[in-house]
Amino acid sequence: MIIGTVMGSIFSTRKSEKLVGNKFMIVRPEKTMSGNGNDLIAIDIIGAGIGEKVLVATGSAARIGTDNADAPVDAAIVGIVDEGQDGMEVISS
Amino acid sequence: MIIGTVMGSIFSTRKSEKLVGNKFMIVRPEKTMSGNGNDLIAIDIIGAGIGEKVLVATGSAARIGTDNADAPVDAAIVGIVDEGQDGMEVISS
Amino acid sequence: MIIGTVMGSIFSTRKSEKLVGNKFMIVRPEKTMSGNGNDLIAIDIIGAGIGEKVLVATGSAARIGTDNADAPVDAAIVGIVDEGQDGMEVISS
Amino acid sequence: MIIGTVMGSIFSTRKSEKLVGNKFMIVRPEKTMSGNGNDLIAIDIIGAGIGEKVLVATGSAARIGTDNADAPVDAAIVGIVDEGQDGMEVISS
Amino acid sequence: MIIGTVMGSIFSTRKSEKLVGNKFMIVRPEKTMSGNGNDLIAIDIIGAGIGEKVLVATGSAARIGTDNADAPVDAAIVGIVDEGQDGMEVISS
Repeated sequence: MIIGTVMGSIFSTRKSEKLVGNKFMIVRPEKTMSGNGNDLIAIDIIGAGIGEKVLVATGSAARIGTDNADAPVDAAIVGIVDEGQDGMEVISS
Repeated sequence: MIIGTVMGSIFSTRKSEKLVGNKFMIVRPEKTMSGNGNDLIAIDIIGAGIGEKVLVATGSAARIGTDNADAPVDAAIVGIVDEGQDGMEVISS
Repeated sequence: MIIGTVMGSIFSTRKSEKLVGNKFMIVRPEKTMSGNGNDLIAIDIIGAGIGEKVLVATGSAARIGTDNADAPVDAAIVGIVDEGQDGMEVISS
Repeated sequence: MIIGTVMGSIFSTRKSEKLVGNKFMIVRPEKTMSGNGNDLIAIDIIGAGIGEKVLVATGSAARIGTDNADAPVDAAIVGIVDEGQDGMEVISS
Repeated sequence: MIIGTVMGSIFSTRKSEKLVGNKFMIVRPEKTMSGNGNDLIAIDIIGAGIGEKVLVATGSAARIGTDNADAPVDAAIVGIVDEGQDGMEVISS
């Protein structure tokens, strides 16, 4: 998984029927994280807000692990990182 | 998922029988997106046009999530990004 | 999927029994394509020749989509790109 | 798999129910390893400590290979590298 | 798949029970290959020696294609590249 920040969301009216009901969030991975700071689009099963740091799962984990086994989903926000914790300092250093 | 722009399509007469009937679109990911702007070839289940911004799923999601579970497909256009939305500004900034 | 050029083939006498009967082609992805021009080894289910531009599927698609579900295969040539088409101009520009 | 060093952990109170009970470790891959030194978040099924060198599996292996087949997990610490072995010299050279 | 050279091995006494019995080899991908020369750790089902050039499968192929479907394995040596063949010249050029 990676940690990133929710930058915004995108909207898609014409899309796969299997994607209906999902929110598509733009997540920017931390610069020290895998992904090299390049954004990805993740569905959100937690209810994250813009600016929040989130835990993102990618690949088949995002599909099968979110009860979306049959949907074309390859990234999902699966947790919100608690604020003010020691771990975050490691990440930002 | 990533967002990219449809740049064109390619044609393949000699191909796996399981791919017959698909369109193969050249998609250029946004520069800020995962993929670093490098093109990929995606099947199109939505009917995207050249120049449109699209949502692309990769990996097993592109195969299983588009009813192509048995086909050698690893990327699929699964949505068209709505025009003129706030999210796009975030992406392009 | 990506498009690349068949550069040659490699031979492996000592290999997994599940790989017996396959050809292992060296494919160089187009410079504008995902993969950044770095070669990969793909089985060939189409019969591509050296120098031909081919469509390559990677990941589980290469295994399941080529009736090699039980074999250690993660990349496969699944189509030959037609010559002289407009799409190729987009790719090379 | 890759080898990395456990840098710390992160906490997530609001997360997928399927992730409850897991620890989320920040792992920094060796600079010579795939991943280019970029951190990832892995669950820990072994009980690794901060500063230990660990073996990390990614992708579906991290989910299925750790009895988390239904959880949104894409990276897992699956071993602790023994200290003072020859192999580590190769890695650091 | 990619081709790389076996650089050494690593040992892990504390590891997932599902990994017991496997050897963990350090493989350095060819510089022209996908992976950009960054090492990965692969199980060895062939019996490769240090310095040998090997064929490595990654992802679910390494797990399912080596009868390790339930183990946290994401890379496996599945063949040894024959010496002195033309294909290797292409790789090194």
